[in-house]
Amino acid sequence: MMRAIGVQGGTGPASALFEEQVARPTPAAGEILIRVRAAGVNRPDISQREGNYPPPPGASPVIGLEVAGEVAALGERAARWAIGDRVTALLPGGGYAGYAIVDARHALPIPDDMSFEQAAGLPETIFTVWANLFEKGRLTAGETALIHGGNSGIGVTAIQMAKAAGARVIATCRGSEKAQKAAQVGADIVIDVTTQDFAAVVTDAGGADVVLDIAGGSYFEGNIAALKPDGRLAQIALLDGGKVMLDLMPLLFKRLTITGSTLRARPADEKARLTRAIEDVVWPWVRSGLVRPPIDRIFPLENAQHAHEYLENGSQFGKIVLTL
Amino acid sequence: MMRAIGVQGGTGPASALFEEQVARPTPAAGEILIRVRAAGVNRPDISQREGNYPPPPGASPVIGLEVAGEVAALGERAARWAIGDRVTALLPGGGYAGYAIVDARHALPIPDDMSFEQAAGLPETIFTVWANLFEKGRLTAGETALIHGGNSGIGVTAIQMAKAAGARVIATCRGSEKAQKAAQVGADIVIDVTTQDFAAVVTDAGGADVVLDIAGGSYFEGNIAALKPDGRLAQIALLDGGKVMLDLMPLLFKRLTITGSTLRARPADEKARLTRAIEDVVWPWVRSGLVRPPIDRIFPLENAQHAHEYLENGSQFGKIVLTL
Repeated sequence: MMRAIGVQGGTGPASALFEEQVARPTPAAGEILIRVRAAGVNRPDISQREGNYPPPPGASPVIGLEVAGEVAALGERAARWAIGDRVTALLPGGGYAGYAIVDARHALPIPDDMSFEQAAGLPETIFTVWANLFEKGRLTAGETALIHGGNSGIGVTAIQMAKAAGARVIATCRGSEKAQKAAQVGADIVIDVTTQDFAAVVTDAGGADVVLDIAGGSYFEGNIAALKPDGRLAQIALLDGGKVMLDLMPLLFKRLTITGSTLRARPADEKARLTRAIEDVVWPWVRSGLVRPPIDRIFPLENAQHAHEYLENGSQFGKIVLTL
Repeated sequence: MMRAIGVQGGTGPASALFEEQVARPTPAAGEILIRVRAAGVNRPDISQREGNYPPPPGASPVIGLEVAGEVAALGERAARWAIGDRVTALLPGGGYAGYAIVDARHALPIPDDMSFEQAAGLPETIFTVWANLFEKGRLTAGETALIHGGNSGIGVTAIQMAKAAGARVIATCRGSEKAQKAAQVGADIVIDVTTQDFAAVVTDAGGADVVLDIAGGSYFEGNIAALKPDGRLAQIALLDGGKVMLDLMPLLFKRLTITGSTLRARPADEKARLTRAIEDVVWPWVRSGLVRPPIDRIFPLENAQHAHEYLENGSQFGKIVLTL
């Protein structure tokens, strides 16, 4: 048996989260079992708790998309890893628990000088930023990236990765305090959207080659306006709504690209490919310290309710992590 | 001096087109002068005549985006070509005339067995299809392409190029007669949109990896619905309007890409890059006969009015060409 966080009644508010004992899973071929030491907390966890983001087929019903810990058991064909290896991994579910099963190809080695808490907060944001800002958005050195929600886990990671890649970064935040923090983690220009029109500021600064957006909704029109010719909009969440008006005319005349994606639903082979690319390109930035998003707050696993309430409150800067 | 087609009053209906005498241009460094033997007629020509698509800075004010003919004079640094070479070229303007100036890097050699009339109809459609269906849309062998307006110059070229690349092709047309012709030039499945719901037919056929669309407007929602996961929509014209409702939710969950572009406004260096890619990949298909869009009708230059009226009528299948 092992500890795990369940949701009383299947779905509900943060207060429905409770600790229970469930069966410890066994790794199948190609999988490893991780003794979880820390688990990242992400917005999709809230959607799953509310019943709006069911786990994909075959995934654990337990909430949690990323963990760090030690390899505790190996399935067949997981020869890269040895018992006791310190790893962090992207999961389709099951992170809020004492042990988690993961495809052996979706794990990455934790740098020697990095804590489990720090490592647990890396996969979800790094995979998302890599897949969208770099692969779909094709951000390259010398280009300008506009990153919305510069205070979120995704936002801070995106700022650090874009800077590590040699891009100029414009970040938006809600409030001057968060804007200052976004500048501290490397944004070249920060915009407080509570007092500034981001599209006008970005346009005055020469426009954006790539926009990474978690909002949609009322941000959409400004995103299109802020893009330079040949610009790309990578949409990764819809915190401000999904139904928008699109004028295809600037899409044609500025030769724009609009892309969207989610991470969890991608096939396992695709996630394995992403893991390899990230280990090649991003992991050196992680090892050197260029990409280490700050942890805002750490909660013990049994206080998952408070971690969710804190994230829902929206005042965090950086990652929220559970420890075991 | 030379012959050229002007527009009485600057802009107007097809009946405003008239033949006049204008100064023969002289090639600058990097340019060639082509003695025009045939000129392609395209929808943007109509927009320019109506005053809705002004020529880019530095381009001839004369209508016409593609010609075929013989090299009549060389500027400096145009050493690839010799006087008398048979070439076809993409122009920023100036095609409806006895002579046309073009960037030497934007011309392609006409295959020995091909007429000027056939060759004049190639550049605009081949460049557009290459840049959108292949480069932005990333169509690859074994994938399914949905091509709207399968009877248009663009549509027929797109069907032939997609088939030459090893893709499966679904084409839409208005009316059963056009649908039959689209099947004759290679479409695997043809849809008559006057009687069939294209999104339903494409979905039943497994969905599209890439959609090439000239309509926008009422086609947009069906295009999004018809795309498979990781699908791409390449928007190249807006014959049915540009303002659409976009639901970003399927964009995220199907990991879609929406792109748009126009050809004329691209920088000269970018057009030179496209020309090289087309000569490498598409020109072998042209030489072998895999890509030779049918000519629907040929008009003498002085009857440009009737060519425009015929195109506006929308009943053509394949290209419309002017001869000199």
